[in-house]
Amino acid sequence: MDATELILLYDYYGALLTDRQRECFELRYNQDLSLGEIAQELGISRQGVHDNLTRTEALLQNMEEKTGCVRRDLHCRKAAVKIHSLAQQLTGHNDPTVSDLARQIVAEAEGLEE
Amino acid sequence: MDATELILLYDYYGALLTDRQRECFELRYNQDLSLGEIAQELGISRQGVHDNLTRTEALLQNMEEKTGCVRRDLHCRKAAVKIHSLAQQLTGHNDPTVSDLARQIVAEAEGLEE
Repeated sequence: MDATELILLYDYYGALLTDRQRECFELRYNQDLSLGEIAQELGISRQGVHDNLTRTEALLQNMEEKTGCVRRDLHCRKAAVKIHSLAQQLTGHNDPTVSDLARQIVAEAEGLEE
Repeated sequence: MDATELILLYDYYGALLTDRQRECFELRYNQDLSLGEIAQELGISRQGVHDNLTRTEALLQNMEEKTGCVRRDLHCRKAAVKIHSLAQQLTGHNDPTVSDLARQIVAEAEGLEE
């Protein structure tokens, strides 16, 4: 699992981790420190940092496997972008019923893209 | 928090609970047994069942507060139903461009309602 995927999972499930797990994760993936630098920063061993990060990665992956929260959310956003693009093609239609409904659809889709 | 809400949270986060927590929860909320009946079934005290269920309810609420997974998913489904209903009004339009795009939007929305 690469860093981008881990950071995505962390955005969803990070709040369920312990303070120490969050601290290690953020030093590693947001501040891009080495294991040695994190160890020094937190006053623990390099192995301790490594074990903490390995455990966090396993927890994040497990939470996604068990709940599918990220997968469903990405599916929703992707469909919203598609719907937005389809409805956008009708917002300038000369039948006002069509353009009005299309604008309402665009607004609903936009609410799902954030 | 009422039973319906708890069961909804359980559908999303139940897999993150321990086997024993799931067992107690299902006897209580799916099979509708009393605390005394669950205690007898599992060979533990009535107080033990009570504590287990209280802990499970707190965990489920905490997971939702921390991740908002259910809230987001319900928001997505609700918007999908709205989009479906708006687009449905255009699927019989006499301009084939309109009816074709509307049908594509309906199909995308349906994919989000499941």
